[in-house]
Amino acid sequence: MDLERAQRTGIGEVIFGEGKTAEQVSAIMRELYERQGFALATRISQDKAEAVLPELPDTGSHKPARVLHLGTKTERLPGDVAVVAAGTSDLPVAEEARVVLEALGQPTTLITDVGVAGLHRLQARLEEIRAARVVIVVAGMEGALPSVIAGLVERPIIAVPTSVGYGASFDGLAALLGMLNSCGSGVTVVNIDNGFGAAFAAVQINRLAILQD
Amino acid sequence: MDLERAQRTGIGEVIFGEGKTAEQVSAIMRELYERQGFALATRISQDKAEAVLPELPDTGSHKPARVLHLGTKTERLPGDVAVVAAGTSDLPVAEEARVVLEALGQPTTLITDVGVAGLHRLQARLEEIRAARVVIVVAGMEGALPSVIAGLVERPIIAVPTSVGYGASFDGLAALLGMLNSCGSGVTVVNIDNGFGAAFAAVQINRLAILQD
Amino acid sequence: MDLERAQRTGIGEVIFGEGKTAEQVSAIMRELYERQGFALATRISQDKAEAVLPELPDTGSHKPARVLHLGTKTERLPGDVAVVAAGTSDLPVAEEARVVLEALGQPTTLITDVGVAGLHRLQARLEEIRAARVVIVVAGMEGALPSVIAGLVERPIIAVPTSVGYGASFDGLAALLGMLNSCGSGVTVVNIDNGFGAAFAAVQINRLAILQD
Amino acid sequence: MDLERAQRTGIGEVIFGEGKTAEQVSAIMRELYERQGFALATRISQDKAEAVLPELPDTGSHKPARVLHLGTKTERLPGDVAVVAAGTSDLPVAEEARVVLEALGQPTTLITDVGVAGLHRLQARLEEIRAARVVIVVAGMEGALPSVIAGLVERPIIAVPTSVGYGASFDGLAALLGMLNSCGSGVTVVNIDNGFGAAFAAVQINRLAILQD
Amino acid sequence: MDLERAQRTGIGEVIFGEGKTAEQVSAIMRELYERQGFALATRISQDKAEAVLPELPDTGSHKPARVLHLGTKTERLPGDVAVVAAGTSDLPVAEEARVVLEALGQPTTLITDVGVAGLHRLQARLEEIRAARVVIVVAGMEGALPSVIAGLVERPIIAVPTSVGYGASFDGLAALLGMLNSCGSGVTVVNIDNGFGAAFAAVQINRLAILQD
Amino acid sequence: MDLERAQRTGIGEVIFGEGKTAEQVSAIMRELYERQGFALATRISQDKAEAVLPELPDTGSHKPARVLHLGTKTERLPGDVAVVAAGTSDLPVAEEARVVLEALGQPTTLITDVGVAGLHRLQARLEEIRAARVVIVVAGMEGALPSVIAGLVERPIIAVPTSVGYGASFDGLAALLGMLNSCGSGVTVVNIDNGFGAAFAAVQINRLAILQD
Amino acid sequence: MDLERAQRTGIGEVIFGEGKTAEQVSAIMRELYERQGFALATRISQDKAEAVLPELPDTGSHKPARVLHLGTKTERLPGDVAVVAAGTSDLPVAEEARVVLEALGQPTTLITDVGVAGLHRLQARLEEIRAARVVIVVAGMEGALPSVIAGLVERPIIAVPTSVGYGASFDGLAALLGMLNSCGSGVTVVNIDNGFGAAFAAVQINRLAILQD
Amino acid sequence: MDLERAQRTGIGEVIFGEGKTAEQVSAIMRELYERQGFALATRISQDKAEAVLPELPDTGSHKPARVLHLGTKTERLPGDVAVVAAGTSDLPVAEEARVVLEALGQPTTLITDVGVAGLHRLQARLEEIRAARVVIVVAGMEGALPSVIAGLVERPIIAVPTSVGYGASFDGLAALLGMLNSCGSGVTVVNIDNGFGAAFAAVQINRLAILQD
Repeated sequence: MDLERAQRTGIGEVIFGEGKTAEQVSAIMRELYERQGFALATRISQDKAEAVLPELPDTGSHKPARVLHLGTKTERLPGDVAVVAAGTSDLPVAEEARVVLEALGQPTTLITDVGVAGLHRLQARLEEIRAARVVIVVAGMEGALPSVIAGLVERPIIAVPTSVGYGASFDGLAALLGMLNSCGSGVTVVNIDNGFGAAFAAVQINRLAILQD
Repeated sequence: MDLERAQRTGIGEVIFGEGKTAEQVSAIMRELYERQGFALATRISQDKAEAVLPELPDTGSHKPARVLHLGTKTERLPGDVAVVAAGTSDLPVAEEARVVLEALGQPTTLITDVGVAGLHRLQARLEEIRAARVVIVVAGMEGALPSVIAGLVERPIIAVPTSVGYGASFDGLAALLGMLNSCGSGVTVVNIDNGFGAAFAAVQINRLAILQD
Repeated sequence: MDLERAQRTGIGEVIFGEGKTAEQVSAIMRELYERQGFALATRISQDKAEAVLPELPDTGSHKPARVLHLGTKTERLPGDVAVVAAGTSDLPVAEEARVVLEALGQPTTLITDVGVAGLHRLQARLEEIRAARVVIVVAGMEGALPSVIAGLVERPIIAVPTSVGYGASFDGLAALLGMLNSCGSGVTVVNIDNGFGAAFAAVQINRLAILQD
Repeated sequence: MDLERAQRTGIGEVIFGEGKTAEQVSAIMRELYERQGFALATRISQDKAEAVLPELPDTGSHKPARVLHLGTKTERLPGDVAVVAAGTSDLPVAEEARVVLEALGQPTTLITDVGVAGLHRLQARLEEIRAARVVIVVAGMEGALPSVIAGLVERPIIAVPTSVGYGASFDGLAALLGMLNSCGSGVTVVNIDNGFGAAFAAVQINRLAILQD
Repeated sequence: MDLERAQRTGIGEVIFGEGKTAEQVSAIMRELYERQGFALATRISQDKAEAVLPELPDTGSHKPARVLHLGTKTERLPGDVAVVAAGTSDLPVAEEARVVLEALGQPTTLITDVGVAGLHRLQARLEEIRAARVVIVVAGMEGALPSVIAGLVERPIIAVPTSVGYGASFDGLAALLGMLNSCGSGVTVVNIDNGFGAAFAAVQINRLAILQD
Repeated sequence: MDLERAQRTGIGEVIFGEGKTAEQVSAIMRELYERQGFALATRISQDKAEAVLPELPDTGSHKPARVLHLGTKTERLPGDVAVVAAGTSDLPVAEEARVVLEALGQPTTLITDVGVAGLHRLQARLEEIRAARVVIVVAGMEGALPSVIAGLVERPIIAVPTSVGYGASFDGLAALLGMLNSCGSGVTVVNIDNGFGAAFAAVQINRLAILQD
Repeated sequence: MDLERAQRTGIGEVIFGEGKTAEQVSAIMRELYERQGFALATRISQDKAEAVLPELPDTGSHKPARVLHLGTKTERLPGDVAVVAAGTSDLPVAEEARVVLEALGQPTTLITDVGVAGLHRLQARLEEIRAARVVIVVAGMEGALPSVIAGLVERPIIAVPTSVGYGASFDGLAALLGMLNSCGSGVTVVNIDNGFGAAFAAVQINRLAILQD
Repeated sequence: MDLERAQRTGIGEVIFGEGKTAEQVSAIMRELYERQGFALATRISQDKAEAVLPELPDTGSHKPARVLHLGTKTERLPGDVAVVAAGTSDLPVAEEARVVLEALGQPTTLITDVGVAGLHRLQARLEEIRAARVVIVVAGMEGALPSVIAGLVERPIIAVPTSVGYGASFDGLAALLGMLNSCGSGVTVVNIDNGFGAAFAAVQINRLAILQD
């Protein structure tokens, strides 16, 4: 069994679907489900999903997020994680984060269309964002949204640059560099389009509350 | 005479000081002053300024801006240009823009310390910015300020990325890419640390009002 | 409603079509048309346009420009904006600028095939360019045309690098860097292939004349 | 007052010393101390520190970390943050993180010389790392340490690439890319050499425990 | 005859299939087989292989490795070369190395799924790796595996970065830079996805043992 | 003797001074002078030149060009090579080309201050440029001059990008890419700041005329 | 008419086919043929060629070179230009150079499969190369062939990097940088895959001989 | 004790001097000498060496190589390693390799001034190179020497790119990319200027002969 993006720690293992055949994905999902009570696979293309689903009938498939899941982690995490997406085009990455969070037992709020060129829209959703324990901010183009949110919200912020844009966005490089140079204190960053990674990090943060008990 | 950054059009010529000796700068300033009634030199290091000043006693020297000027263009431009700097470290570039604007006959308002991680400070200065005809926005690090201002102000915005930052700012590349990918409509961009270029472009825009008369 | 590239200011909002479905584009166009009397969508692929048009029968479709528009902004802007394209391959980007300008009420002159390796062609069109209030210069490969025009024309110049070229053009990077380093004073630059952004900035500049009245 | 890297939220504001004069740093520290009971300044060069210290006699100066602090935040945070540095050359950045953490009320454990080419040294310190609530991992060269620790420890991991290395390290780019591509789930990354940012993020995470009460 | 990647020395020549037609590959394979008793071609796409095979019926085709071979080099090399792949997605490159090694007379052990985020899996295979004379390590993403193995095994290590990953992996650049900056002494590196090159280098090293006799 | 940049062909050998001590330069110059009747050394810093000159009293030193020469090649080449520099800051590189050309027996015309933002200056010198057999064009910033000259002059054009500029010039990269993407047919390019290389290539071209006799 | 890559000088104009429709190519070829007695179009894809040929029955089509030509320039140029290609994969670019040279009246010798890893093959063809007046060297991967030939041949050398390679060749960047940094004196370089540009430059050089008469 | 570049395997540990104080270097050298009978430190600046030498009187200092050593490894390795440097400027890196090899018990031959633009010099030394068991090739600029040697010598070749060059060498990037794309089979590469790493790898290869006994 090969679980590249998996975690051999408390949360359980997750399948990174890219570069694996549908057969491999099916087999590993079944095994993981038996072992840990749930199975989650990310980066599953539409074609691959269609090949996997007849094999594992109870599997849920999240199309824009490209995620498959079978069962859900029974661990329930406290509070809420806000997944904030700057624009519509950032939604597939935000959805990947949201689906992974919920499969791992974390209640989630998805907030979209709050890019920095329309601050009034952001302001209208600010209370929802402030109510979260952890905030995942997904943005392409110049990637400025995490800086703005960091100045308004006193919670851990995980920034996800997306490959949305063209020309000098260089497939997400502009957003990535923008987020790494954020003037907002305490912003941390994951790889371009890595909604999964942000979700996993948020779960690790929120599990600290359970560990304390 | 060599006037690399000069304009052979309506505004007059300006000296780009880098790579020129103090003697060359003095001689060209004197000639330009005689020809067009004012002389302006940018990118003049502290040492070079000290060598030029005794030669041209009436010359004004702007230290952080690294600009020398002798006389002022008599043309008076309408309204106001706002030069908005995200942080203290961006001031030398903002000052270059401001000094050039004023030497070219353009009234100017300098607004500083309004970075995107502290939107309340920006909000407090918003009326001043909205009162300007053209807005020059100077920012380093992630370069997000022009996007935010573009969503709040309906005036032409010229963005100047600065080399302020470290690590993955790559000497201003992050801010440059951020500004080029701005989700705010109508933002245009000049070279990294090019306060002069932004000022010159703003003057070209504002001179359209005079030409109409 | 999601209007990533939109402006919440004086000009009205414009739809950035990339990453949106035909259904989303149709719906937002209809809503915008009702709200502001015109609707404009950029980056609409041929396929998407064909799916939208039956839904909105009065919509105009500009094929090389990849723009859809429904109605036109009634505001009439003064004078003329010249859209100057270096070569035939730069035309789709120049057309995007031209169609957006006209939909926003700005009379426009399109001038093509005046690349710097044939200065006589440029010279033959110079009076037309000088007659404009603002000049948008669209060029790929080495992106030298804005520098040359900046030395001949005393008007604001907005440079649009295009991804035209091959090899060491690196998808428009060479033209972008060339324009940012322009020795012509006052040239400002937008993202690679961003004809829309240049048009929007030109409209913002020309609206200053209306505001004065 | 200019507080670029500051936070206008729960933790208090911190001074980013680069590009500020010693006088500016002294003045802002005094003001911050009065306002929030402690003052912290990062990126203070040896020279600047020597100019500030006579002005503010009770200020502590941390030489390798380039941090000044006056007073300490009285808020006490739970548990422990481990700051893990791969090698001796990474120590200044790790020290910046440690000093900031302690000034913000967070108990800290510093663990050094546990680079991935000597796993037995890492293994010898593993229990200490596992005992922490949050782990900050500081590494230059190939930046592989966060991936290895992510596989061994079920806590949030914040990775700090350093500019340690030469040649194809490209001033920390290799370590930065390595960490962003980490195969260890849930690793988040801050800017090259940004020990402050990692510490601030760790404090934001640990404050969640206080907020729950 | 054109044998770009060939060696005109002791081992014999090998065909680099990219940019050659199926006819050219068939012809060169036949000629090489007659001259040196074996023929080996790398980078043969699925389509090209299907066109070559009917022409040369005894040819073996290795699908994931994209290698064709006709006959085997009769020279038998001592000991064993370990080909270690971090994850499933790295297998095609590892397979290219393995098939080339075996065709050149080198016994080989293939070890997979031992990425650095799961050190226990690596530990379980450590004795096999230590038993090899030369170790080829194939890894994408952050490319950290060679550093870790270099600290555990006292044998020559040849690192092969792969283009496995996304976003800031920049098609293998992250893994390449990571391996070049390895803190493990004595790691040498070949081009991204160049399993052939690593195999050839390993054979050159192992042939030193034969030359001594 | 070590003559890295030398030519073992018809023109004679030339010393590349960088990374050599003054003693090494003196010794090689003496030996070359004896062997081929002249000696030429490039990239000689001011300090190194001052250490070499007392050793070789008849040596000529060209300060901005950083070239030393002892004797001159007696071969006389036909016609004229024009060395055209866009601005004053490009002069050291243009001077390197000029001094090398003349030492190798090639008559030369130096033309400066004809950057593309002032086409009238270029036009005033056009006849001189057209009179040359080969044209070397030296330019920094956006590097557009070779394209313009290629459209006006039907002679071989060798473009030399310089590191003149700042910000997004990236030490000459912008000019280099601009020249490589030149829309002017037949422009060839040498390394950034490589006046020597352009001169050597021009001599190779002009020597074809002698070889014909 | 739009002739981007054309020359408005002595040689005549040439059509750059990329970004033009088959209709445009046909029309311009016909017009050029009438005006200058021959017409040449480069970068014509297979599909476009098939659409053009029925329109212009006497047109010759060179498949790997992607060149169309109608008639030939009657000017006969002296001597010979050698087009030297390192490997089979570099042939399309070398063929583009060869076809353009011959259409422009320049006798040509094509020499292939002489990469630097097989110096004996290069040595076998050295007399042919030395017999040429100008040498065009076409190579991908590390682009080392021009350096080696520059040390063996005293003729102008024009280097053409190709996009042949994979991984860290970065689409020809490695070969381009290698050629720009050539330790062989007098090597000049054109854009990646630009066989046309090298041919045009060679013709400009060889026409100097005609001009002398 | 901190030994970043050290090896915890058969050869012993080596000190990477950069980022360590003279006191730290002295202390670790003393401890290593006691433990393993020899001590070796690389990347020791002139100043640091002068501070260390009085502390450890028997230490040998190799100035261009920037290496200190105390005692020598008693293990004697078979045969010879050739260290081949393209030019004089590459000597410091070649010397680092040579000094490390000899301190580790490996007889060495240093061959210099055999760059690819002078193949006759390389040919004159070919027998010496062929007599070695392993060949380390050190080259800057275009980095072509390993490809040429790989075609002439059937031994393992370890390529070391150096930062020798200027302009488009980008501090060794050109040489590094050239070597990674080498058309010579079996060339492996280490980091820019990493003479130590190449030497260490060569020792690991040659120790295989001892292990067999």
